[in-house]
Amino acid sequence: MTFNCTIPVISDLHDTALTARLQHRIDHKTKPLGALGRLEPLALRIGQILGSESPQLEHPQMLVCAADHGLAARGVSAYPSDVTWQMVENFLAGGAAVSVLARQHGLALTVVDCGVARDFALRPAVPGQPQLLVRKVAPGTHDASTGPAMTAAQCAQALANGMDVVRNLPGNALLLGEMGIGNTSVASLLLSRLCGIPLDECTGAGTGLDAAGVARKRAVLAQALQANEGAVEPLDALAALGGFEVATLVGAVLQAASERRVIVVDGFITSAAVLVAARLQPHVLQRCVFAHGSAEPGHAHLLAHLVPHPQARPLLDMGLRLGEGSGAALAWPLLQSACCILREMASFEAAGVATQAA
Amino acid sequence: MTFNCTIPVISDLHDTALTARLQHRIDHKTKPLGALGRLEPLALRIGQILGSESPQLEHPQMLVCAADHGLAARGVSAYPSDVTWQMVENFLAGGAAVSVLARQHGLALTVVDCGVARDFALRPAVPGQPQLLVRKVAPGTHDASTGPAMTAAQCAQALANGMDVVRNLPGNALLLGEMGIGNTSVASLLLSRLCGIPLDECTGAGTGLDAAGVARKRAVLAQALQANEGAVEPLDALAALGGFEVATLVGAVLQAASERRVIVVDGFITSAAVLVAARLQPHVLQRCVFAHGSAEPGHAHLLAHLVPHPQARPLLDMGLRLGEGSGAALAWPLLQSACCILREMASFEAAGVATQAA
Repeated sequence: MTFNCTIPVISDLHDTALTARLQHRIDHKTKPLGALGRLEPLALRIGQILGSESPQLEHPQMLVCAADHGLAARGVSAYPSDVTWQMVENFLAGGAAVSVLARQHGLALTVVDCGVARDFALRPAVPGQPQLLVRKVAPGTHDASTGPAMTAAQCAQALANGMDVVRNLPGNALLLGEMGIGNTSVASLLLSRLCGIPLDECTGAGTGLDAAGVARKRAVLAQALQANEGAVEPLDALAALGGFEVATLVGAVLQAASERRVIVVDGFITSAAVLVAARLQPHVLQRCVFAHGSAEPGHAHLLAHLVPHPQARPLLDMGLRLGEGSGAALAWPLLQSACCILREMASFEAAGVATQAA
Repeated sequence: MTFNCTIPVISDLHDTALTARLQHRIDHKTKPLGALGRLEPLALRIGQILGSESPQLEHPQMLVCAADHGLAARGVSAYPSDVTWQMVENFLAGGAAVSVLARQHGLALTVVDCGVARDFALRPAVPGQPQLLVRKVAPGTHDASTGPAMTAAQCAQALANGMDVVRNLPGNALLLGEMGIGNTSVASLLLSRLCGIPLDECTGAGTGLDAAGVARKRAVLAQALQANEGAVEPLDALAALGGFEVATLVGAVLQAASERRVIVVDGFITSAAVLVAARLQPHVLQRCVFAHGSAEPGHAHLLAHLVPHPQARPLLDMGLRLGEGSGAALAWPLLQSACCILREMASFEAAGVATQAA
């Protein structure tokens, strides 16, 4: 397929001098060397992304992209498609997990209708309240088990939408969330196709299928891979197997990376969007912090692929499998802590504390 | 030894009706069953402790107990004993990790001189600033490698101090922290003695000993166990092998448990204090949330002993080995999230979201 969209070039953040200054700063804080564990490389990472020895996270944005999936009609989820729009209403009304957690942490919440099979009433933006943006490509994708989920033009539109949405959001940190009944199937398909991992290892219970349901889902997904067997390049695979919310997230990730925002990746589905973005622009990964390891089995494969270094493993391991951005929101205070440590913690010299006797 | 102190009786929190109501409430939130992973049993636990379906954490108190150790003169730490008082000053000046993290999360910080080998200038309490309480039993313990670290009267005094300090702190949540050069040795000794685990498995690098240092530390600790071989009961072991900050923490834990405060346990040393308290009153553990698994190897043994159920594993696994209460502070937002979920998240019915199709 031919995609009529411009993918930004994501530069290498490599800056030896800044990295050395950050590491020196971390090592001279009043604590034994390395005693803050994985908070230390996290601080280093954020400092590198924001290009500062005293990084400050500002106006963090939780972006929840929602859409429906033709595949859902094939019974790949424990929930009906109507739950997608119902949960969008729940996000906006403040009652969903991500609404609650975003409020707790002062994260501005933007919900994007990327392709939900329902028209939402537009509502005026109220400062401090969740906002709805309608960037609907179509009311749900085609059934990927019978052919491409979307056209090249639709995929390009979704990518452009994601870039545009982020371009217009303030701040230097973007937290990724999603909603879409059937979208763990999309993540499984993209993982299997782009990483060459057998489909069965990429496929789990999603929102709560029983064993028979998982078997049915696997059969449907195998059909989808077969129906789109030529779609092996990242954007081809995204169009053939993807969802509008995933494609919008790919655009959002690329835009955020190009602006050197800190990107906080939630679970399986948002990680699949990062996979596609990283195949297009590998340096995207330098801007990503992986919030948690999902209980959905494909996520471990996906993370191992994206962040093979054990130091880069996700911050939390809470057995979450909700999506929405809930894991990103739960991990958010750890990013703030890493910055506070860099900015506010005293050095041995400043505090008059003796260094190691040895 | 005879201990002249009254240990409060800690009741069983068992309340089938409340537990059922809490679980029902969690299960009917707008999310797949169990999708919030370990946040769900955490919410249940806090609800049980506070006796509420809508628990609210109020005026959380970070309590950092500090003292010096006779053992430190035997070279069991990578740092000199002077670092204890220097770090107390750092806590109070706001430059230590726990100061920074407590400030980030709005935790009131109280530092207790339980037995530091230095007299601190008293300072007026300033609202919103860290406060120093002097509850000094003696300027450091005796060298436990030659006999009991403290007398029975000193141990009873430290326990009473801990109870008294907590009794006078507001709020319904207590976060445990500590400082004391040499106190990973104390934790190793208590773990080995009270749980019958070989000393070498209980002993690690602490703040950063090299291999020769660890070997020296092990030899000294073996002498301490031998010099106090009759001290096998919890309070006897605490007096013989303990530190003033650990004994004060034992008292603090007992008092907090008796008042049904949520107790957030930090790393290896505060867990050792919980071990002693739980040996005296096992229901103490019902009030405890274990914040993180320390990189100090003894901690995994200690946690396996205290919380054998895998669901009860600590919230964070960040490779921390700083102490101070830093891990408790880092985990704190997760406790708040659990309460927010219980209080603020909508039910399927209230939000008009369809439940599982099956």
